[in-house]
Amino acid sequence: MRHAVLLGGKRMRPMLAYAAAHACGADAEATDAPAAAVELVHAYSLVHDDLPAMDDDALRRGQPTVHVAFDEATAILAGDALQTLAFSTLATSPLPSQRVVAMLAELAHASGAAGMCGGQAFDLAATGQAATTTLAVLEHLHALKTGALLRAAVRLGAIAAGADDATRARLDDFANALGLAFQIRDDLLDIEGDSATLGKTAGKDALQDKATFPALIGAEASRARLDALAGQMRAALEGCTGDTAPLSALGRMAIERDA
Amino acid sequence: MRHAVLLGGKRMRPMLAYAAAHACGADAEATDAPAAAVELVHAYSLVHDDLPAMDDDALRRGQPTVHVAFDEATAILAGDALQTLAFSTLATSPLPSQRVVAMLAELAHASGAAGMCGGQAFDLAATGQAATTTLAVLEHLHALKTGALLRAAVRLGAIAAGADDATRARLDDFANALGLAFQIRDDLLDIEGDSATLGKTAGKDALQDKATFPALIGAEASRARLDALAGQMRAALEGCTGDTAPLSALGRMAIERDA
Repeated sequence: MRHAVLLGGKRMRPMLAYAAAHACGADAEATDAPAAAVELVHAYSLVHDDLPAMDDDALRRGQPTVHVAFDEATAILAGDALQTLAFSTLATSPLPSQRVVAMLAELAHASGAAGMCGGQAFDLAATGQAATTTLAVLEHLHALKTGALLRAAVRLGAIAAGADDATRARLDDFANALGLAFQIRDDLLDIEGDSATLGKTAGKDALQDKATFPALIGAEASRARLDALAGQMRAALEGCTGDTAPLSALGRMAIERDA
Repeated sequence: MRHAVLLGGKRMRPMLAYAAAHACGADAEATDAPAAAVELVHAYSLVHDDLPAMDDDALRRGQPTVHVAFDEATAILAGDALQTLAFSTLATSPLPSQRVVAMLAELAHASGAAGMCGGQAFDLAATGQAATTTLAVLEHLHALKTGALLRAAVRLGAIAAGADDATRARLDDFANALGLAFQIRDDLLDIEGDSATLGKTAGKDALQDKATFPALIGAEASRARLDALAGQMRAALEGCTGDTAPLSALGRMAIERDA
């Protein structure tokens, strides 16, 4: 479990939770539990996605994946227990119980069959099917597989801060654009990046015959789409009254990152 | 997910949750969410335990296991999403939020690294080590692997019912005895039962060189231990003021069942 969580990673999801809560006027401490919980869900999903029966990846964050460093049974169990720890961390947080229940419901919805797990199932079904995957299917797949948890990070931060409905709606718009941008950038990095910088195997999408944004609409149109999404993120944050500078920086990072 | 949950099973854990809540004066409806949640955690754990990298079992409840009926990736994801659904079911239940948070914390603790997942890790480590496994280690292993969730079922029922501390302590005593009895009976069934009645492969423990109660202390002493545990269960329930007849019947079922 430590190997999966403590050996690095961008910490994009906890930063989003903290930045969203900050934009709604909450202090960092109130966001510790939801920030940790979304990262734990992310970490568990990587451990299971890397398994031989799934994406079969040996390298993650520049380190051997859990099933390579230990064994498959340990990786399955460590992933299971990390998911449990995510919910445990939220359930034992000192926040008001109504907010805790709302965050738990949100995180479970985003990470289960109607969110991340469902998206991974779609992704496995679409692997080797690049020729017949449409842009609409690809966007839906990523909205579930990656987008749901990124959005949940923002939503949990807003719930922890006790944000009003209007602010939560604006942050949702921001998070939806960020989630899609994050994935398009991921697809571009897979064709343009190298394994050493990425800390994971580059060039896997083409090898596995997976549909990607560059493959479907071209690298140039993918970059143009990123610009449009950056504009959507700015527009969504303009309506917020709080300090949205950290959120805005994370939006740029999702688009400009090289790992 | 349906294959894992809806094709049978004894439903021991939900029955325990309902019976515990009933003993504390709650109606059945208030116990629906915790009863479903513990069964969903149990179902997810079976899907993952049956995987080739774990116990490698092809038969469960007289049906092909999930990875046999579908494939390994589907089994991993279905198990993951079933765990999420357990927490989702609790988090969206109509019970007062303070009780919901208490139940979520309890279920997460019982099923994670300090409970069920940890117990399964111990069990894998002890497989093939029957000769060097002591009775104390075996009891600890089962207290985590099987006992924690059985106890959680009882505790969640009591929390849903708003039971007082004294009643919860008595129900804990009952659940601890039941958890151990359940496992000893399981070990006896593995040597005495047949696969058709069990709905799973009999005789696996010896084949895998796993420590069991009959192997460590003999079948006769194991049966005597069951009698002693039955006495502990009766004693624990005597102090309860509510109707403990259903709980008491489940205690007998744990000891006398032949599947």
